Amino acid sequence: MILKTKKNFYNGNIVTWDIKSSKVEKYSVIICDKLFDTSNNLLAENKNLKIKSRRLIFIDNNFSTHFYQKVDNYFFNKKFDYKIVPLDIKEEDKNLESLNKILKFIDNFGIERRSEPIIVIGGGVLTDIVGFAASIYRRGIPYIKIATTLLCAIDSCVGVKTSINHFSRRNRLGTYFGPEKSYVDLSLLQTLPEEEIAASIGEIIKIATIKNKNLFNKVFLSSNNLLKPSFYKSKIGKKIIELSIHSMLEELHNNLEEKNLKRSVDFGHTFSPVIEMRSLDDQSVQSLKHGEAVCLDVLLSSCISFQKGYLKKNELVKIFSLAKSVKMPLNHSFITNIDYLLESLLDATKHRNGSQNFPIPTKIGSYKFLNDIKIEDIRKAIKIYQGNTND
Amino acid sequence: MILKTKKNFYNGNIVTWDIKSSKVEKYSVIICDKLFDTSNNLLAENKNLKIKSRRLIFIDNNFSTHFYQKVDNYFFNKKFDYKIVPLDIKEEDKNLESLNKILKFIDNFGIERRSEPIIVIGGGVLTDIVGFAASIYRRGIPYIKIATTLLCAIDSCVGVKTSINHFSRRNRLGTYFGPEKSYVDLSLLQTLPEEEIAASIGEIIKIATIKNKNLFNKVFLSSNNLLKPSFYKSKIGKKIIELSIHSMLEELHNNLEEKNLKRSVDFGHTFSPVIEMRSLDDQSVQSLKHGEAVCLDVLLSSCISFQKGYLKKNELVKIFSLAKSVKMPLNHSFITNIDYLLESLLDATKHRNGSQNFPIPTKIGSYKFLNDIKIEDIRKAIKIYQGNTND
Repeated sequence: MILKTKKNFYNGNIVTWDIKSSKVEKYSVIICDKLFDTSNNLLAENKNLKIKSRRLIFIDNNFSTHFYQKVDNYFFNKKFDYKIVPLDIKEEDKNLESLNKILKFIDNFGIERRSEPIIVIGGGVLTDIVGFAASIYRRGIPYIKIATTLLCAIDSCVGVKTSINHFSRRNRLGTYFGPEKSYVDLSLLQTLPEEEIAASIGEIIKIATIKNKNLFNKVFLSSNNLLKPSFYKSKIGKKIIELSIHSMLEELHNNLEEKNLKRSVDFGHTFSPVIEMRSLDDQSVQSLKHGEAVCLDVLLSSCISFQKGYLKKNELVKIFSLAKSVKMPLNHSFITNIDYLLESLLDATKHRNGSQNFPIPTKIGSYKFLNDIKIEDIRKAIKIYQGNTND
Repeated sequence: MILKTKKNFYNGNIVTWDIKSSKVEKYSVIICDKLFDTSNNLLAENKNLKIKSRRLIFIDNNFSTHFYQKVDNYFFNKKFDYKIVPLDIKEEDKNLESLNKILKFIDNFGIERRSEPIIVIGGGVLTDIVGFAASIYRRGIPYIKIATTLLCAIDSCVGVKTSINHFSRRNRLGTYFGPEKSYVDLSLLQTLPEEEIAASIGEIIKIATIKNKNLFNKVFLSSNNLLKPSFYKSKIGKKIIELSIHSMLEELHNNLEEKNLKRSVDFGHTFSPVIEMRSLDDQSVQSLKHGEAVCLDVLLSSCISFQKGYLKKNELVKIFSLAKSVKMPLNHSFITNIDYLLESLLDATKHRNGSQNFPIPTKIGSYKFLNDIKIEDIRKAIKIYQGNTND
């Protein structure tokens, strides 16, 4: 729609065209099983996309040869004309240089603009960076995400955000650019090492604590089994994944491009960005994985809620107890480093356009936003945090 | 909206969430005068944006000191807290390196996410690259475009496309990211050198030929005056700018993100991208400005239309005659270089998802798309082109 208005233009006044256009964003998140069995047609049938048979496939290099082989067999069997590009990109390499490398593969493949969706099979780092590349190549070409980590399955894979780290800041550059489809393949998750699962639990604890008491209870009751890959074959393990995705989507679907900067899913993401990035740069401390940094932030933020009189003591203890049972690195020195905490809060405030919009649980499964966090509140929370981790 | 469907999930089948979300894109294009006179409040009043008083301003370095001073005075007088960054970015520098430099200025300014729109004052190269930076910094911060060239006024400034050149390809990376506002300040255009105006006329000829006979006639009748800066003080000069913008918007407003790849405004943009880029790389030939390359493509495409029996001889002659009168470099060797023409057609076809969607004028002001251009057609058109430029 164009609305044109004139006010004495030829006497020095103005002509204005107001342009208004609406756009529908659509995508699907799909939990499935054995996506790369040749009897499975999910990746090969998709009439809506006017799919053609060329595919460029980026795959996380951390996979076993066996798995690479499975993907190769699948596309060979389905008679695609395809190229598989193994990539080894870690959080530290989620940068402009790696982005450019990915763009070069896309350019060399001579991809068509709309009918040859790129496929990315990997964790959140890879889906974020390949998604970013897809969003800017020819101003956007379609792509499909396939999660190979639990963290990606319940977090990066669910939404439309793409990114790279830049200027030593987590996800400083990026776009909102939804995939055609996001697949969570349970058979892949069941092959994860325990360490990889541990790194994901932070985001599950986050979403459960802030949004879903039912999920929290299920996670709490299963805490002894959460780290076992085989747990995700069980009905309860699958249910935990399903509820985590559903809770995320409930929060995201009306706010895909973050027009509203009060986001409950920012819980655990106020202090963690600086802590996570600094832990990668600083050789003298343990590097934190994203889910671990988020978990530490969840705990400290819960301490702030307790200290401000919202969260009850027994619920705070329950959240700490859950984090301990899944071996989170609770004694990491950065989560009690007041300088890093303040730096991260300040940057998060800029990101939330000048408001703290700091989400805290008022009880498990419910939240509110605070906008008056002061340095003293954080200092007190650090003491409470230390009290809960030392015992 | 989320639609969740399950099919025997726990027996190995699938759970699907279909997410659908609609979004409204809004912006304004404004022709005005004396934007930086302190009596003009257009840039200082904008309640809808919840505008704050900090501004980062990128300005084309080609400006006279006088003009820089005017911008400086304006924001000083309006009591903004601002920083002006002069930049000298030419088509050859519209690359990743310059993008990163701009991002660094934005990061150092510590910009808030939604309430401190970046202002870019310049030609299309600068508005494209600063727009791209704005679109990816924190996944998008608001920006305002102010055109200082006629080409930008009727082309880059009107739409939502941002870009940089990459892999030796014009605009290979970019986004669709509309500005808050785009201003065309007539008082700025009236200070342009003749050479700069000449470089813009190609796009006016394009839009007039393919879409607007009334505009074509006005341009044709004024062809002796088109290159004079003072012409754009006249009623007819202003009307030509207004009609050019209006014709572009008519075509763009329903197709901002190019969902439809049949675009009449692609006229002049099938052969020109490779020709323009190569002319910048090759020291042995004259560098082509964008509008010049577009004009050469307009002429060759019109020859194809004539050769295929659509465009009448007298109309073809009229288009050539217009191009000659505004001193276009019609004898540039690249527009008759069959290798470059084919390379560009092939890439344009990928960009149009495998279809040529080649727009040609059937008569002045009307068009159709061809999808069956063959090498022979181009060879014949080259001969016709040469016949029309040699006489």
